[in-house]
This record gives sequence, structure tokens and C-alpha cells, in this order.
Amino acid sequence: MQNQKQYFPMHTSSPLAEILRQRRQKLATLIDFPAVLWSGGSSPRNFPANTFPFRPSSHFLYFAGLPLKNAAIRLDGGKLQLFMDNPPPEDALWHGETPTCEEIAEKIGADDARPMAELEDYLENAATLPVQDAATWTQQTQFLNRWILPQNPPDGIDLELAKAIVSLRLTHDAGALAELRQAAAVSVQAHKAGMAATLTAKLEAEVRAAMEGVIIAHNMTTAYSSIVTVHGEVLHNGHYHHRLQPGDLLLADVGAETGTGWAADITRTWPVFGKFSPTQKDVYDIVLAAHDACIQEIAPGVEYSEIHLLAATILTKGLIELGILRGDVEKLVKIDAHSLFFPHGIGHLLGLDVHDMEDLGDLAGYEEGRNRSQRFGLSYLRLNRPLQPGMLVTIEPGFYQVPGIINNPKIRSQYQYSVNWERLEQFADVRGIRIEDDVLVTESGSEVLTAALPTSSQEIEALVNS
Amino acid sequence: MQNQKQYFPMHTSSPLAEILRQRRQKLATLIDFPAVLWSGGSSPRNFPANTFPFRPSSHFLYFAGLPLKNAAIRLDGGKLQLFMDNPPPEDALWHGETPTCEEIAEKIGADDARPMAELEDYLENAATLPVQDAATWTQQTQFLNRWILPQNPPDGIDLELAKAIVSLRLTHDAGALAELRQAAAVSVQAHKAGMAATLTAKLEAEVRAAMEGVIIAHNMTTAYSSIVTVHGEVLHNGHYHHRLQPGDLLLADVGAETGTGWAADITRTWPVFGKFSPTQKDVYDIVLAAHDACIQEIAPGVEYSEIHLLAATILTKGLIELGILRGDVEKLVKIDAHSLFFPHGIGHLLGLDVHDMEDLGDLAGYEEGRNRSQRFGLSYLRLNRPLQPGMLVTIEPGFYQVPGIINNPKIRSQYQYSVNWERLEQFADVRGIRIEDDVLVTESGSEVLTAALPTSSQEIEALVNS
Repeated sequence: MQNQKQYFPMHTSSPLAEILRQRRQKLATLIDFPAVLWSGGSSPRNFPANTFPFRPSSHFLYFAGLPLKNAAIRLDGGKLQLFMDNPPPEDALWHGETPTCEEIAEKIGADDARPMAELEDYLENAATLPVQDAATWTQQTQFLNRWILPQNPPDGIDLELAKAIVSLRLTHDAGALAELRQAAAVSVQAHKAGMAATLTAKLEAEVRAAMEGVIIAHNMTTAYSSIVTVHGEVLHNGHYHHRLQPGDLLLADVGAETGTGWAADITRTWPVFGKFSPTQKDVYDIVLAAHDACIQEIAPGVEYSEIHLLAATILTKGLIELGILRGDVEKLVKIDAHSLFFPHGIGHLLGLDVHDMEDLGDLAGYEEGRNRSQRFGLSYLRLNRPLQPGMLVTIEPGFYQVPGIINNPKIRSQYQYSVNWERLEQFADVRGIRIEDDVLVTESGSEVLTAALPTSSQEIEALVNS
Repeated sequence: MQNQKQYFPMHTSSPLAEILRQRRQKLATLIDFPAVLWSGGSSPRNFPANTFPFRPSSHFLYFAGLPLKNAAIRLDGGKLQLFMDNPPPEDALWHGETPTCEEIAEKIGADDARPMAELEDYLENAATLPVQDAATWTQQTQFLNRWILPQNPPDGIDLELAKAIVSLRLTHDAGALAELRQAAAVSVQAHKAGMAATLTAKLEAEVRAAMEGVIIAHNMTTAYSSIVTVHGEVLHNGHYHHRLQPGDLLLADVGAETGTGWAADITRTWPVFGKFSPTQKDVYDIVLAAHDACIQEIAPGVEYSEIHLLAATILTKGLIELGILRGDVEKLVKIDAHSLFFPHGIGHLLGLDVHDMEDLGDLAGYEEGRNRSQRFGLSYLRLNRPLQPGMLVTIEPGFYQVPGIINNPKIRSQYQYSVNWERLEQFADVRGIRIEDDVLVTESGSEVLTAALPTSSQEIEALVNS
């Protein structure tokens, strides 16, 4: 019975129910048809009974609040119906006593609770969004008698639903922010632990262990596959086997996710032996200047693409001062010279997904009527909207020497006068640097949710040597 | 370039190629048609680009040796062909330089390497086995033009292939054993770290973090979802939020998996405050006696079901001595009285899967012609074969007070004379105990791969207090 009471993390019933009630009432002002959202099921790992940890659909979590497996909710005119089956009695042997469908319904403030099979009677004119696991999108397809596939962009009423959900999830309510702050706080601790573990670590994997250990100890999960690498120039590096060598910088992009799915996303870069080299410090300070200037600019109404171009400008200016780039700042930015060393966007939305609502393509990231630029310096920008209070975005400028870019003969000839390639060689020990924080747009400007983690090179060095 | 050379863990090319050559030559003696095995792809977590860690199909890993994503191999008459696409050049920006298909082919000793699309020309009369991820079984189905679904038992030549692979994977070669020993050694360290972290931990999650931290630090993954719980009576407990309370026993079932997929599976149970109570020690010693006796009995030719019944007998005998069970040992075992407290099987096969080859149902676990018993005390037995040298099995007796069993009125009345229910109440602080080791069947008997982790209550207490 003890187990039963404590089954779901951290929420007392009524505040959660109230948060959820407000969300669906807002939804009801935006659509005049029912929405049915499935939670999804576990995905098998190497055999059916050995599954990956269950992660519900984010859209479901937003309106249902709890990580319920194989459940669905129906939202209609502000009402909430929960559809899920109670586990068979013999299940208690393996999984313990779990709350009944009715108990969960009460906790989340649902108006009624029914077995999954009855959902078929409530699907008339209902919109939905696809979940990721095959068993569930197969069920969605069968129940609704039309193809619901994760790879298909939503259409018709599904598209209307998607737009309505985007408009809600774009800005975070108090319930979301409470979770996002928890994720940020634990992620800050994880990074501090990673820095403190580095001097005695021999492998990247050992630093990763120290960081993820903090997240696991707080009964959270990583929000995405951690990047913990001395090869920060490999942007999505998923390897942890390199030895830490004298002179290496370690780039760690690690974030926690709370039990109800809210994410943090932090990157820091630190010297594995506790001291930046002069060249590393020079470049680090340029990246940090871009980071600080971008955060300074964040405020309601500001275009996020302008923040991106601000980062480009400050990086370019700094690289000119270091003698790596040559020419006029504005002209260099216009020809995307900064993108040789900063080939990604300045950041993205953050919420229940680390790239929030990226399952909907650019529907959330791009203001209606806007599309991705073909320009090399802008094509990877994931967010292109005016900022609004309550939005949470990452700010993550970087400097990378990607071999595939800087050794590309075509690129070298194209930028032969813009880059001082000989000077660049003196910065060979700066392979990859990124500094990333999670920034909330407020009425008056911004608040850095991850501000408890220092960014200055001195403070970083102090943490590594602590 | 450094990255490229070190891309795959731990293997130098030639020993791996030789191991794989021997495996496929054995396969060639068992089937006279080609086999095509897909590796699979990443499964999406909450949106397509945020995936779970990639885990290839175990059958693929057995013959391909490396965790290649979206690849397939064709085995025919001892020849090995590798089908996979080289990543597009722009991929290097995000994922770094990766070995080419041709380089991998050389490493694993493949006879040739071709793009995936060419596989369609090599599928005549080919057998296969389904992988777990939907994108890949969809491709299998399309390429072979017949349904290949993880939930469908193999049939026809696929069944012949499955049986041939079972006969190979049932016993482990030197290459497999080297990996299995590594997984065991790291898992032993993880358990020691968990014990050492318990006295200062407040939550189950903190002990889990200490244990999984060791596994992550060794650049391995957990082979299955860890169980780290003070509610060991919930057999598949996936929660870690309980506080450690005076008098609690912590049951930890945690195992590592090497980079090429080989697993360990260890359970220990320890007192969270460093000392077993007299009642806990009494029951612990009974479970340990069963554990030791079973391992003692393991030898070629011995029926694994006899090992299970030996555990049942020793547990029953011990529980009679404690006054919990009443009556004659043999008669109590015959009416499954032990199953009230030990409702699962004594163990299972272990290899690339923690329940090895369970994707094939009972094809691996059960000798041809044998089926699961309907008897409560035997129905959960996952392995029913005579043991052979080279088999790796778990031995995992336990004692649990599962509320769903011991509070069930029907069961209480059925066993009213066999159980001294009043005496049982004096053992309320023994909710769940399991002791699990990984035991290799050798020519002369057995070898415990996880023997470096103590089992005696005194040694366990010493590790917790260390």
C-alpha cells in the first residue's frame, strides 16, 4: 500500500489537477473538436520483454501530467476523459500494487475513466497526433481508421490541433516552470560533479558517469544522449572511450529530465587538466562574450534570428581580433564566414522535449509563413520567431574546428582571403567549445534558469580543481 | 582520424574476424540456405531525432561482432557479406569521421561490402529473423516480400535458421566468454559500489546511481532496467524513489553489457543500515544455502529443471526449520508450497540477451519436445534442458512475501495447514531476498563468473560498512 501511494513522483493531487484543468480549458478556446492523445508504450530493446525506459508522448504528458503507459486521454470542451486498462490481478506479483485507472483519474482531475476498448466509441471527429512507438501508432491508425504515422506531418484537424498545442506549449505556465527549474538545478549539479571528477578521470566515460550519476541519484533521467567528449568538434558525438590527454578540452552537453518529462539542456567546456591554455582561453572568452551578449538581448518581441546573428557578429568580431578572420565584421557575417567555426544555430525551444515540439517539424520553431533559410549560416537555426514571455530557449554559441569543414578544399578556396589559415593553425588545441544555458523570456527581459552554473574561465577552472 | 581508428571498442581486427569466421562456418554445417540478418536502427524516444541508445539485434551481433546501425549481413556457406551505406559526407559534421563500409568489412573479415540497396539482389531463398524496431522490420518485410514481425514466431526456413542459431548460441565460444567475463567483472564492481554507497544514501535512486555510475564509467550500458529497491517483493520493481528506512533490506538486480552486447546479471540483497536482523539473516542463509547447493550441482548432463527443484527442496527444508512451513519436505514441494515464497524460476540462459534468445520464445530455453509446465511452481521456469559445457546460466533463488500471494484468501485457505501464518508474521522485515550469480557450465562442473562478489551475510555486511 505504501508503494501505491508513492507511485507517481512529487505531485500532490490538487495542484496537478488544477494545472491540467487550465491547460485543457485554454485548448478548448482554440479548437471546437475533440482531441485524443495517446501516451504510447515501451519500445523493445533487444527482445520484447527487455524494453527501453518508458517515455510517454510529450503532448500526452502536457495534458495528462503523469507518465501513464498505454493510456489515452480525450479532451473536449475543457473536459478530460482517461482511457486505460487496469492491470490484471496477477500483474501485482511482478509489478506490485499500482493505482487503478479510477485513482489516477482522480489525481489528474479527469471527468471519467474508462477501459481502453471504450475509446473506440469516443472517436467521432477526433483529432490526434502520432506517438513514436509502433505498437501505439498502429493502434491509433486502427482506432481512427486513417493513417497516423510519426513520419507524416499532421493534416486537417490534426494540423489544427497541432497548431493549438504549439500555441499553448510555446510559453510555459507555473506548473511547467516548477518542473523545468528542477531539471535545471539537477543538471547544474551534474555539471559541477563532472568538473570535479575530471582531474582524477582517465576516460571521457568516467566524467559522464559522474554527471549522469547525479541525475540518476535524483531519480531523473537524461533528457537526451549525453555528449561528454574531448572531440567537441564532432557535434553529435556519442562516444565516450577517449582518454583525457594533457591539453584537451572536454565538452559536456548533459541535461536532466524530471519524472513528468520536463527537460534541461546545459553545455560547458573545461580543460581536463584544470587550466585553459592561452589559445583556449582566447577562444573561450569570445564564445562567452557571444553567450553573454545574446542573453542580454533576450526580451519579449525580440526576433530569435536576430539573437543568432548577434552571436555571429560577436564571434566574428572576436575572431578578427585574434587574427583568425580577416576583413569587415558585417561583410564576413554576410558571407557566413562565422559558420566555418559555428555551423549550428544559437539554440532552440526547450520544454517537454529538448528540442521542444520537434516532432511537429518546424511548426513550433518557425513563425507561420516562415521557412528555413537556404543560407549555410542560417539553415540549422531551429527557432525563428519573435520571443514571448514564458518561452524557454537555449543560448549555445560555440567554436569548432570541424575537419570536414576546415579541411574541405572548396571551402578553403572560397574563404581563402577571409580566414588566416596559418594563424588558425596556432589554435590547434581548440577543437570544440560550446557554452549553453537555458533562458526564460520574462516580461521584463530574461532569467537564466541554469545561472547557478558558472561560465567564466576562472570559475570553471576553480570547479575543475575543486 | 584518431576518432576513426578508435571507433569500435576493444577489438583488434584479426581475433574478431577469426571468432566470426568460426561462428559462420559452424552455421554453414547446419543450414544449406543463405541467412540474412539485419542489425536494426535506433528507436525514437519522444521525437524522431531524440533516440534511445542504439542496441543492435543480438543475432546480428553474434555473427557481425560490431554494433553497426542500419546494416545487414548475409551468411552463406561460410561466406560473409556486409550490406550498409556509407554515411553522406555532410554527416561527418555531426558525427565525425566514421569508418567506411569497406573498412568495417575488413575488420570483421567480410568477403565483400555493398550498399544496402544491393541486398535486394541477394535475397533468393534467404531466411531471416525479425529485429525489434519498426523501421527495420518494415524493411525486412518489404525486401523479402513476406511478413517479418517481431511478434510472429519464425516459420519454415526462418524456423530452421532460428534452431541453428540456438544450437550455436546455447554454448559460448572463447570470444563470447572474454566479453561475458568483462561484463561480469564490471557488474561485480557495480554491486560493491552500491553496497559501499548505501549507508550514506537516503533514496534507492542514490544507490542505483552509484551502481550504474560504475557501469557508465567503464563505457558499458546496463543490460536491462536495474532493480534497486527496498521492496524486493515486487519482482520487476522499476521504481527508485523510496527512502531507505531502518530495518530495510535493499535488493539490487543490476548487470552490465559490453560494447558488443554481452551481458551480466547479478542480484544481491543487503541491509541498508549495515546489519541483517536475526530474522533477515535466518532467511538470507536459507536462500544462500539454496544458491550454493544449486551451483554445486551444475555440471554437464544435469537437467536444469532438477536444479530448480533442488532449490525448491532446500528452501522448503529451511522454511520448515524456521517454522514457517509445516510438513514433509517432498510433499510440500509437490504441492508447490515453496512457490508461495519463491514464485519464479531458478534462472535462465545468459549471453547477448539477459534472457538469452528469449526473442525466439522458448526455442532456446526448452529442449525440443518440452513445453512449459502448468504447475505454479514450474510455469515460470525459463530453462528446461540438460546442461552442456559452455552454457552460461543464472542461479537466482529468492524469498519474497508478495502481498498478492500471501494475502490471497484462496491461497491462504489452500495452504492453511502447510504454512504457519502466525510464525510468518514474525518475519515481516523480510520482504524480498534474492541472490543471483552467473554460472558457466564447464567440462568438469561449473565456474561462477561473478564469484568475485561475496555472498555470505558477514561479507555483505562488511562491504556495506566499508
